[in-house]
Amino acid sequence: MDKVKVYVEANKDRFIKELFDLLRIPSISAQSEHRPDMQRCAEFLAAALVEAGADRAEVMPTAGNPVVYAEKIIDPKARTVLVYGHYDVMPVDPRGEWRTDPFEPVLRDGRIWGRGADDDKGQLWMHAKAFEAMCATDSLPCNVKFMLEGEEEIGSASLYDFCRTHRKLLKADIILVSDTSMLSMQTPSITCGLRGLAYMEVEVTGPDKDLHSGLFGGAVANPANVLTRLVAGLIDADGRVTIPGFYDDVRELTPAERRAFNRAPFSLAAYKKSLKIGDVEGEAGYTTLERTGVRPSLDVNGIWGGYTGEGTKTVIPSKASAKISMRLVPNQDFRKISKLFERHFKAIAPRSVKVCVKSLHGGMPYVSPTDMPAYKAAERAVAEVFGRKPLPFYSGGSIPIISGFESILGIKSLLIGFGLAEDAIHSPNESFGLEQFERGLATIPLFYKYFAQSR
Amino acid sequence: MDKVKVYVEANKDRFIKELFDLLRIPSISAQSEHRPDMQRCAEFLAAALVEAGADRAEVMPTAGNPVVYAEKIIDPKARTVLVYGHYDVMPVDPRGEWRTDPFEPVLRDGRIWGRGADDDKGQLWMHAKAFEAMCATDSLPCNVKFMLEGEEEIGSASLYDFCRTHRKLLKADIILVSDTSMLSMQTPSITCGLRGLAYMEVEVTGPDKDLHSGLFGGAVANPANVLTRLVAGLIDADGRVTIPGFYDDVRELTPAERRAFNRAPFSLAAYKKSLKIGDVEGEAGYTTLERTGVRPSLDVNGIWGGYTGEGTKTVIPSKASAKISMRLVPNQDFRKISKLFERHFKAIAPRSVKVCVKSLHGGMPYVSPTDMPAYKAAERAVAEVFGRKPLPFYSGGSIPIISGFESILGIKSLLIGFGLAEDAIHSPNESFGLEQFERGLATIPLFYKYFAQSR
Repeated sequence: MDKVKVYVEANKDRFIKELFDLLRIPSISAQSEHRPDMQRCAEFLAAALVEAGADRAEVMPTAGNPVVYAEKIIDPKARTVLVYGHYDVMPVDPRGEWRTDPFEPVLRDGRIWGRGADDDKGQLWMHAKAFEAMCATDSLPCNVKFMLEGEEEIGSASLYDFCRTHRKLLKADIILVSDTSMLSMQTPSITCGLRGLAYMEVEVTGPDKDLHSGLFGGAVANPANVLTRLVAGLIDADGRVTIPGFYDDVRELTPAERRAFNRAPFSLAAYKKSLKIGDVEGEAGYTTLERTGVRPSLDVNGIWGGYTGEGTKTVIPSKASAKISMRLVPNQDFRKISKLFERHFKAIAPRSVKVCVKSLHGGMPYVSPTDMPAYKAAERAVAEVFGRKPLPFYSGGSIPIISGFESILGIKSLLIGFGLAEDAIHSPNESFGLEQFERGLATIPLFYKYFAQSR
Repeated sequence: MDKVKVYVEANKDRFIKELFDLLRIPSISAQSEHRPDMQRCAEFLAAALVEAGADRAEVMPTAGNPVVYAEKIIDPKARTVLVYGHYDVMPVDPRGEWRTDPFEPVLRDGRIWGRGADDDKGQLWMHAKAFEAMCATDSLPCNVKFMLEGEEEIGSASLYDFCRTHRKLLKADIILVSDTSMLSMQTPSITCGLRGLAYMEVEVTGPDKDLHSGLFGGAVANPANVLTRLVAGLIDADGRVTIPGFYDDVRELTPAERRAFNRAPFSLAAYKKSLKIGDVEGEAGYTTLERTGVRPSLDVNGIWGGYTGEGTKTVIPSKASAKISMRLVPNQDFRKISKLFERHFKAIAPRSVKVCVKSLHGGMPYVSPTDMPAYKAAERAVAEVFGRKPLPFYSGGSIPIISGFESILGIKSLLIGFGLAEDAIHSPNESFGLEQFERGLATIPLFYKYFAQSR
């Protein structure tokens, strides 16, 4: 492997410079005005992968944003790794809270700052550059395929169809994904569980126009008041979701599993301090690790209605809305949960208002087995680079398409992410540590080596 | 009075044309970018009042928006009427719901459409033009003073000081105000009660930055969820405000008063139909008329937090906020209620969040006696123009400064408004019927006549 290390060392400044070019493209999938940026970003990546050594790379259109597909086949009989990543990023608001422009990346304090620095441009770039290093040094031990999508942050809608259409093209032994985090640099971990997601939007409509809150206040149901009542009622005093049937399919951990799970290093005091909160809050009877790792949750992601500008306006708004998402755990099905939510929300709405409930997107929870060859290879590679065997970890996050890969392509995914909680993905001032980037670059070729050997 | 009628008839097209010029000035007091428009609007009015016949008119600076003062003294021994009105208007959002530009007034279906058409530019213009007609025909029977402010919609903060400073200048026998509505053209009414107002803003802060709702959801208190819980908890299942002490000073009507009050013509079916609502909602045990007229209320005027754009963002927002106002009735004191609100809201907030509570503005409830000479004169004038004796009516709205006039200047106000519910004040597509404008113009000179005679 020394050749690879030498190559990486000699070229890593250029790798970062190229990553900055990628980060400069504002590929926000949630906002339609960025549609041209999605295409531009896909073309950038296809060109970069050919440059890195791919036999071919294509920007393949879908009903939504294009998928970048690339491959290098060294031997039809060798193991095949399908690298999955996404080039779309989250919106940047509140923009005013960014210390520097989200799309003008900077290096500061040993970290790369910018939207997508970690999630997922920084992480997919480690794979592109590890691939380049292996190609350039003639040490690629597996066939490699890349599938980079532009809709992960909005539910990967088009990728399901893409997978259905291209089953043969995407044939592989493992899907390799770096879109998750480790516990810390001192406690490396590999994600073996992801929560599912059911993302809803609700709109409560009262009178057909905004009303004067003096003339009508007290007699007409205020949609904003009603919305707070309906949303507040979705969680009870024990922190449990009140939607009938919500917990029916939740797999409860055995006492032994719970003990093992809670053995992961975790300091509640440090957790509270890092978030500057006075206390945590969640489902009664579960630890913080359990609440995010193996229990479902319900969060308001956005809420709006009425006058939100400067000063005052004495109005009863005609409408009020909220975006509400639920994280799901095995064996909850997002389609069933979305339906239960919709039925419940409509059932609890009073006759004084109309409610509209939409499912915006969803995905299934996922469990990655720790006894498959890819996991073993990754465990060995991480141990070699980090000096410590990684812990299997249940993340609270969701990558809905991962369970889709299994059901459509029949291929398991290995979730080997190099992010850290401090990277602030989805938040202002997202960043990615240079050390994380470099350790990822060092770990990936070792994974290929051990995975090829595990045949 | 025929001279006045003839003058009005001959000039009313010009009156409307001039009103359009006034309506074109976007004098939104809540938005600081409109500061120059406030000055421009005040200057327009001062010039118009001199033109109409005032001995003098001045744009008098305050700490906020200027006050327009004008007067015509016919005889130091004659009765003096102080006309109060406001030239500031409400914000126009949601702007997309206006059928025509809010600041480009149009005449359509016998109505004037535009922001301020009723509230209060259209109504104060009736007074300016009735004054012009009386001056021009040499038939003004009282001394007249005008005091037009530019901060009514944001709490009249500067006018309190203005009144304290100019007690002598403002000396009058009655304050004449057209900033309210009638029950209908068939059922004219004079407002004899106004609710008070306590307008608050609350901000709930959880983690110090937006968080990924997958990684933290279920373990960290979400400020948007907490906000819905806290706000929903301010009203109980009976529609009563839960703030301790909130009802302590509320004057309960006697059974006889309640019977009399509920004799006003009111159709619940027509009310629901006009607002396109399936049902009304309010404090248990009270009628709709009582709920808006003599009972206090609590409304969310605006709520916001997290991602409110297109599509989805899986975020736990760092902050969520709401604007909440309470309408007050005799003998509630807005200062006491604001303090009770603040204390309660802080008390119910969990340790997992910080809350910040601000009082944005407030005003006292007001009762106008029906046995004072000005009321009797107005009753007679309205009966003559509308063909029916007006009902005394308790409005749910607030004009906080009215109780201020009484406490600072020691002068009662007569609330003779010519608005209608359908005018949609504070809403998109505000309008004012030409017939309302003309009946106001006809009523005002009669009021002056009968009020002068009542000496």
